[in-house]
Amino acid sequence: MKLSCLQEHLKRGLAVVSRAVAGKSTLPVLSTILIASDDGRLKLAATNLEFGITCWIDAHIEAEGAVAVPAKLLSDVVWSLPNDRINLALDERTQTVNLTCARFESNIKGTEADAFPPIPTVDHRTPTAVFPSPLLRETIQQVAFAASAGGTRHVLQGVLLRLRDNRAIFAAADGFRLAQRIVALPEPVARPQDLIIPARALNELARILTDDESQVEMMVPHGGGEALFHTGAVDLVSGLIDGAYPDVDRVIPHQRQTRAVLDTQELTKAVKLASYFTVAPSNSVRLHMEPGGDLGPGRMTISANAVDVGDNQGQVDAMIEGEGGQIALNVKFLSDAIAAIPTPQLALETQSPQHPAVVKPVGGDGALHIIMPMTIR
Amino acid sequence: MKLSCLQEHLKRGLAVVSRAVAGKSTLPVLSTILIASDDGRLKLAATNLEFGITCWIDAHIEAEGAVAVPAKLLSDVVWSLPNDRINLALDERTQTVNLTCARFESNIKGTEADAFPPIPTVDHRTPTAVFPSPLLRETIQQVAFAASAGGTRHVLQGVLLRLRDNRAIFAAADGFRLAQRIVALPEPVARPQDLIIPARALNELARILTDDESQVEMMVPHGGGEALFHTGAVDLVSGLIDGAYPDVDRVIPHQRQTRAVLDTQELTKAVKLASYFTVAPSNSVRLHMEPGGDLGPGRMTISANAVDVGDNQGQVDAMIEGEGGQIALNVKFLSDAIAAIPTPQLALETQSPQHPAVVKPVGGDGALHIIMPMTIR
Repeated sequence: MKLSCLQEHLKRGLAVVSRAVAGKSTLPVLSTILIASDDGRLKLAATNLEFGITCWIDAHIEAEGAVAVPAKLLSDVVWSLPNDRINLALDERTQTVNLTCARFESNIKGTEADAFPPIPTVDHRTPTAVFPSPLLRETIQQVAFAASAGGTRHVLQGVLLRLRDNRAIFAAADGFRLAQRIVALPEPVARPQDLIIPARALNELARILTDDESQVEMMVPHGGGEALFHTGAVDLVSGLIDGAYPDVDRVIPHQRQTRAVLDTQELTKAVKLASYFTVAPSNSVRLHMEPGGDLGPGRMTISANAVDVGDNQGQVDAMIEGEGGQIALNVKFLSDAIAAIPTPQLALETQSPQHPAVVKPVGGDGALHIIMPMTIR
Repeated sequence: MKLSCLQEHLKRGLAVVSRAVAGKSTLPVLSTILIASDDGRLKLAATNLEFGITCWIDAHIEAEGAVAVPAKLLSDVVWSLPNDRINLALDERTQTVNLTCARFESNIKGTEADAFPPIPTVDHRTPTAVFPSPLLRETIQQVAFAASAGGTRHVLQGVLLRLRDNRAIFAAADGFRLAQRIVALPEPVARPQDLIIPARALNELARILTDDESQVEMMVPHGGGEALFHTGAVDLVSGLIDGAYPDVDRVIPHQRQTRAVLDTQELTKAVKLASYFTVAPSNSVRLHMEPGGDLGPGRMTISANAVDVGDNQGQVDAMIEGEGGQIALNVKFLSDAIAAIPTPQLALETQSPQHPAVVKPVGGDGALHIIMPMTIR
């Protein structure tokens, strides 16, 4: 292999595929990046066996070839080089990559490309669904955080994607809360499908996606098993999670007794302050809603009490419809839900202290957060 | 105690004294901040028994008093409050601090102020030495990093300050390297003195110091034992280290065979790149200096070789006086010394591969870095 490319292109490409490099693994090859000539371009690829990222950059290829190179070392070296042309040559016998740029020369020991795990490719190239990049990114950011980070129920570590006609419903839940967003698709899907995509892979996809006008094509082969996301010069392939996802619709409340409309930023600050006075494991804050009247506007009181530490109480103005009342919620779940609200105002809807609370944007974008209540003491 | 003050003043004061709060300690009171009325102002104080910081802020005092409050909780709460007037009242019976601000109210459980360790004060109020703030800050940043972070020789965890007439010589060494800077004092000192000040306390002092025209007064009582630094509304008191500091002057080379003048930024980048190819424990990079001639300018070649990883070589232009030659240095010590050079150009002086190397700014400001050489293999 012998080729040259621009430092800034290689740097950007390495930053993208590095997201799929296994942090710690017993398999040394998973901490490498595959670099290979590919049809007149330079292909970079990394995988942690859960998901893989491939990226192509412009290069002048003089001789074909491929090698796996330690990911961190290669990235460190390329980041340190000046923004100039990099010449890259592989010594096939020693599997050593020679890299020259300006007045710098490095030799990096690699391993045979054959040892690199194959990254699944999808044969069926008609997209299963197409998403605008910024919309998909925002949706992942609003939903994937609610997936379970670990635990025994593997399906809860994924995001449920339900494709129906020209709608895609993203949902994630961990048994204590649920985040959901419904987005309109530019093109209807050929057939309804339910997929469970690992939240971690989607979070990395969101990091790669740009804010421009580009699109993301998602392809799922007929046999299932994996999903491929293709945007620009980047592919992300993720395995799908097998299993039955809990019935999301059953969790969504269809009644409410009280609806409070609040300033998102004000509530964020009040909840943050209360969070310092919560106690594990419940970490609960109490929300008390009082409708307005002739004497003044409605308000929400946020309070918390940690026996050995102290207590806190804060008030924010609220437009309250309905009876008012109170509910106790886990402060982390409440903060996460509020942080996922992009609008200046949000609505908090409750039915009773024993029923789940709903947090949603005002001037809605199809997003919905449901939080199970804590016992009020 | 009952008083009120502005949130921004309290926030700033807490940020300053928090630097002296013990990170982890078996003594719970060391994770608190003392708040006390003091002659019409609010005094904040914290100590880790190695050094202590006291700070005074404007406040409207309605009733005198004092209490020790958990440092992190108090800082978190004050940071979360709006920029408004904070009312603070102590319930003497429960030692609970009631804090109200805008529409927020917190109660924080504190402990009796009597349990708070006394922070030494200095009776002799004529300054031992006076430093301009920006100069002292820069000097600490250029010298204190070379002190030993741990180890058995306690004196090496300090910075040696030698006061002589109108000169102050700051030096720190860890047995492998030495950093020194000589600064001119605005006023001559009354008598020559040698002090060993813990590097950690000086680093915190540097963080507090501002870039403005203010001065730092240093006071050492006649009996010794501690040094008090006073600037604006902040006092930092540090214990002094007892013991004999190694003879610094003996380490400073008085001869050189080769002097290379280089661009500081270019050398920084070349050394950074080489650092990825160094191996513990020596972590050495080799510097090779070639004088210029009729064929071109002089140059320095920086190279490193890690058997299982690869190797690297970079070149930077250099004006070389003398014979040239090579030397091997620990890459961290070299990087640290280069990072402490504020001038665009630096000089690297060597005598032989077995003698210490000297790094100093060009257009010198009295700073000097000495690095012991590694064996060249």
